[in-house]
Amino acid sequence: MSATIVTTPSSRAFISDNMAGASPQIAQAVADAAAGQVLPYGNDPYTDSARRRLSEIFERDVDVFPVSTGSAANGLSLAALTPPWGSVLSHPDSHINHDECGAPEFFTGGAKLVGVPGPDSKIDPEALEAAVRRRAGDVHSVQPSAVSISQATESGSVHTLEEIRRLSAVAKDAGLRVHMDGARFANALDHLGATPAEMTWKAGIDVLSFGATKNGAMTADAIVSFDPALGAELAFRAKRAGQLAAKMRFHAAQIDAYLTDGLWLRNARQANAMATRLGDGLKTIPGTGLLATPQANILFCRLPQQVTEGLLAEGYVFYHDRWEPGIVRLVTAFSHSADDIDQLLDAVRRHTH
Amino acid sequence: MSATIVTTPSSRAFISDNMAGASPQIAQAVADAAAGQVLPYGNDPYTDSARRRLSEIFERDVDVFPVSTGSAANGLSLAALTPPWGSVLSHPDSHINHDECGAPEFFTGGAKLVGVPGPDSKIDPEALEAAVRRRAGDVHSVQPSAVSISQATESGSVHTLEEIRRLSAVAKDAGLRVHMDGARFANALDHLGATPAEMTWKAGIDVLSFGATKNGAMTADAIVSFDPALGAELAFRAKRAGQLAAKMRFHAAQIDAYLTDGLWLRNARQANAMATRLGDGLKTIPGTGLLATPQANILFCRLPQQVTEGLLAEGYVFYHDRWEPGIVRLVTAFSHSADDIDQLLDAVRRHTH
Amino acid sequence: MSATIVTTPSSRAFISDNMAGASPQIAQAVADAAAGQVLPYGNDPYTDSARRRLSEIFERDVDVFPVSTGSAANGLSLAALTPPWGSVLSHPDSHINHDECGAPEFFTGGAKLVGVPGPDSKIDPEALEAAVRRRAGDVHSVQPSAVSISQATESGSVHTLEEIRRLSAVAKDAGLRVHMDGARFANALDHLGATPAEMTWKAGIDVLSFGATKNGAMTADAIVSFDPALGAELAFRAKRAGQLAAKMRFHAAQIDAYLTDGLWLRNARQANAMATRLGDGLKTIPGTGLLATPQANILFCRLPQQVTEGLLAEGYVFYHDRWEPGIVRLVTAFSHSADDIDQLLDAVRRHTH
Amino acid sequence: MSATIVTTPSSRAFISDNMAGASPQIAQAVADAAAGQVLPYGNDPYTDSARRRLSEIFERDVDVFPVSTGSAANGLSLAALTPPWGSVLSHPDSHINHDECGAPEFFTGGAKLVGVPGPDSKIDPEALEAAVRRRAGDVHSVQPSAVSISQATESGSVHTLEEIRRLSAVAKDAGLRVHMDGARFANALDHLGATPAEMTWKAGIDVLSFGATKNGAMTADAIVSFDPALGAELAFRAKRAGQLAAKMRFHAAQIDAYLTDGLWLRNARQANAMATRLGDGLKTIPGTGLLATPQANILFCRLPQQVTEGLLAEGYVFYHDRWEPGIVRLVTAFSHSADDIDQLLDAVRRHTH
Repeated sequence: MSATIVTTPSSRAFISDNMAGASPQIAQAVADAAAGQVLPYGNDPYTDSARRRLSEIFERDVDVFPVSTGSAANGLSLAALTPPWGSVLSHPDSHINHDECGAPEFFTGGAKLVGVPGPDSKIDPEALEAAVRRRAGDVHSVQPSAVSISQATESGSVHTLEEIRRLSAVAKDAGLRVHMDGARFANALDHLGATPAEMTWKAGIDVLSFGATKNGAMTADAIVSFDPALGAELAFRAKRAGQLAAKMRFHAAQIDAYLTDGLWLRNARQANAMATRLGDGLKTIPGTGLLATPQANILFCRLPQQVTEGLLAEGYVFYHDRWEPGIVRLVTAFSHSADDIDQLLDAVRRHTH
Repeated sequence: MSATIVTTPSSRAFISDNMAGASPQIAQAVADAAAGQVLPYGNDPYTDSARRRLSEIFERDVDVFPVSTGSAANGLSLAALTPPWGSVLSHPDSHINHDECGAPEFFTGGAKLVGVPGPDSKIDPEALEAAVRRRAGDVHSVQPSAVSISQATESGSVHTLEEIRRLSAVAKDAGLRVHMDGARFANALDHLGATPAEMTWKAGIDVLSFGATKNGAMTADAIVSFDPALGAELAFRAKRAGQLAAKMRFHAAQIDAYLTDGLWLRNARQANAMATRLGDGLKTIPGTGLLATPQANILFCRLPQQVTEGLLAEGYVFYHDRWEPGIVRLVTAFSHSADDIDQLLDAVRRHTH
Repeated sequence: MSATIVTTPSSRAFISDNMAGASPQIAQAVADAAAGQVLPYGNDPYTDSARRRLSEIFERDVDVFPVSTGSAANGLSLAALTPPWGSVLSHPDSHINHDECGAPEFFTGGAKLVGVPGPDSKIDPEALEAAVRRRAGDVHSVQPSAVSISQATESGSVHTLEEIRRLSAVAKDAGLRVHMDGARFANALDHLGATPAEMTWKAGIDVLSFGATKNGAMTADAIVSFDPALGAELAFRAKRAGQLAAKMRFHAAQIDAYLTDGLWLRNARQANAMATRLGDGLKTIPGTGLLATPQANILFCRLPQQVTEGLLAEGYVFYHDRWEPGIVRLVTAFSHSADDIDQLLDAVRRHTH
Repeated sequence: MSATIVTTPSSRAFISDNMAGASPQIAQAVADAAAGQVLPYGNDPYTDSARRRLSEIFERDVDVFPVSTGSAANGLSLAALTPPWGSVLSHPDSHINHDECGAPEFFTGGAKLVGVPGPDSKIDPEALEAAVRRRAGDVHSVQPSAVSISQATESGSVHTLEEIRRLSAVAKDAGLRVHMDGARFANALDHLGATPAEMTWKAGIDVLSFGATKNGAMTADAIVSFDPALGAELAFRAKRAGQLAAKMRFHAAQIDAYLTDGLWLRNARQANAMATRLGDGLKTIPGTGLLATPQANILFCRLPQQVTEGLLAEGYVFYHDRWEPGIVRLVTAFSHSADDIDQLLDAVRRHTH
């Protein structure tokens, strides 16, 4: 690599968990996979191994489609669950609704995203009760077809198992399918201390966007389908959307290493712990208001303007004044250390005075 | 990686250049990129470097969009060049027409692929003359909008510069845009001894699918656009299609290393040389008919059935009886050695008797 | 026609102006057009005549595409104004957003409908100021591309010329295009006493869905484009969407007769006058709350439950309890007489006591 | 209607059966339907009556969706039978493949039209045997999903019942669905002397585009579905595509009158008889080669250039030199009389000398 590459020190990088690189184990696995010849398009032992590991972790056979982005995972999943004249119900804050430039509309052939509000970026179950039946059977309206739950949410909250079950039950009672956007699946799992099965199919999830990229992988997420009837459709849709990688081994090796020896859970635990440490620290600094106690690895807070400016001047990178004036988002990653967090807290304290 | 991964020895792997792994330099670059924090979504120094290198190589500023597959590169490129009521003219053998499960139709919103025949998997310029004007302005018909040229072709032939210029001129005279599917761009370049600029924009190409995966990269190809007016559209389409990777550095690092110190050309030269060696060898074996002298790294030949069966029994993998009975396709890669080829030739000789 | 056809008397029909049949002049024109042979697909003198009349009425050359429904007019118009990654800004009450089963999403290839609220079903210009620039240039978000204004609105209000100009100016300043859903164009025109040109292109409208069906035609609305650059695209999109009628003369003859001797304006005047008469009458009846003074031919009011039930029992048809409990919508048509209205008012009075 | 409307005399109009106006009975039915108030969107007695008549004629309950064009009927039908990654197999001459500006691609969300050749514009059953299984299950290829049969064909031939059954059986054995493009359904029925049931569902047809416009109606064709499982999907797709007319009665009244007292069959018989008369006459004129004996109401022949020019000079309108030089297409309609045909034959004779 060219000598001109300059990276941000991890102590300064809080814009997203996407700023982090990859876990060394995953980098090694990818490098190891570079040698040798295997069949292309997922007919390789790496993809087999990843599928096996996911089936073990989810305690049942699952269909697995490694893809290169979470947007592709979400779009393809929703396309398999929703007809073009359907609507997808999600929280207005959801990534699919807000941050994918209409990817779900593209993949589904023009379905409609309908926001269902609720506190903490979670769909309110009573609002969902109304939404799933809204104009059902009325030919003049898109038809409620799928519910998408972000776990963890875009604001850093985590649904309890009971909350997921409740939302799924409301959906299922009305004949809708349920998708989980698990871009930060492991972070949520760590917070709940639940099993992957409990947080998904046992709670009514049909298809999961299983995130790995934000938590230590490079360019690999996976669609995990708990409904065998969707397998063929997902395969054709993925190919047609340019998501069937010729050298699939390089996506699969990332997933495989990610799931080996609990790396994925360790990474998530670290990221979550750093968010908690950061939140705890901020609580002790006058003038900084935490919007909510972080449950995963995202933290929203209110910082005085001179603090924000001071941090930026020191080279910190993070989103500010994007949601509303004075609001700052700080995202921790597996790659942050306690020192990184403590330095940030020191900086906040310094600029507060 | 699990101990159960078994790979095919390169001496036996001829199904596709997709069977090869990655060049060590590329594997190293990806591993190196794993450390450190950079901005996501392509706002990183790796992507800058890849763009700079491509601009140098093409001798002008280009827009670059790294994507995870050639199908995505082709689909997005064609979507930017063709309205939904347009048609894309390509050879019936072309990958976009034959092997992408309708990806161009998906990305373009339903444009039509129209085959224009010609020998050696190359569009016949006279047939193109007729096709580009067919029912132009007739509202009952899709409108010829873009021509897509595979360089090298799916049968292993390479268009001369003059042939590309001629096809482009026919297209441009009738107001059509020109796309090049360069899944095997480097192989074609090596065969011609031309410059990248000569083979593309100087010959009338508007947008190029720049292949890297088949020639030593892992999961990275790139859209290279020579028309600055298409940049914004391509960016939005790529995001919306799930092709804007969060950790884009890992795609970009592959492209960057691929272009460093001529690796891409060395790899292509080796693959081509191995195809030539294989072709030359086969010519000396009675009963094996070469369909054409390979110009890139794909070779079609006719093998007696007992030879095919003998090779399969020894663990060779390759496509046979897929195009028509008795026809065998052998694809060489950068990873093949002269020994690999000679072993294969020996095996063919052995089974011929 | 079979003897079994039973129609609702006009004195009872208030569910929609779509319940009305057709003006006798239009029925006669269609019957007259049935004789004789003309070229198909709009190359006929009826379509020429309709185009000429529309150009006269709008005081400039316009492109005209007769279509069979308002949803088709809206969908095709928006598809010509918005890329698939664009968003269409309209009031949440708008027909395109609420009542077309995702037709705009279908026709545009998956653009997003974004609601911009405001009182009286009109977009608030200040809210629009924010919306047209929201995340412009941000590749993670759909891009504000078109504003759609309903004139008259779905709740029966009418934008003033100044309001249209203001909304258009906000859109144009930010580079967006402007569409008018004129399903009840003539009703709005009658209310304002403006010219068609003033209410459209002089106020910044690029493309108009020119409604005729609700105001006396049978199955014909028209796209009227004020931007010559959109003509070819609209023609191809209309054909491809099954909206280029072979015997176009039968759509065109409706439009032509509709515009002859001011029939369209007389019909609208009658419908509007009947709504005013109805509103004035309701104001005199205690317990019936008019939500707003009707400006076109739609009236929303609050009726006591026993009144609603009493009317239904007498065979009145109208929407009730659809928007919220107790709310009734009454729509008048060109076919209503003062007697029809007075009978309805009598019935309301009777059931009130 | 304006005094400036000039129509072509029926004795000169042979460009298409779309040049004809409407049967007087249909014009009367539409005019009659103009009076009175009925519920919109197909909830009216006219639509009920049309549905009842179609169910009687087809000897079973059918789902009926009146639409405004045959392209809409075809596109919506195919969208209900084919996934976006599917292919539709039809003859290369088929209207869906050749003359709808990509409407099937638009309605299906990007499925692929694959031509299966055969003589007389009919799919060759043996070619179909191969095509229905081509790359089935191969994720790299679109999947054969539906077969579309034109009855009568675009060249004027008519499939026998046995031919339809054979093609359907080939399709069904491979799991494909079967669509019939019946733009000239009545003409084919008249030629065969078969029942509507025999020619459709008893022969394996799942969904029919039931044409009426070309045979005496104005702007109404209908989707007739023999598979109750498709009803809801067709309803939502039709609405979303702008094909659910508010005043549906005016489409339905056309269908209803068309089917009353055998009008549809009388019209077809007349059109067919005129084609036969024309063909018989041409056979007696030296130098005019009939390409095939017409079975429906389309006739292709070879005319000497001076004959073609002579006819054009007299004001005859018809397609010539469009398929290949010297080839002329003449289409007869219900509105042609024996005199019209005899005049044309006289003119051909005159110009031949």
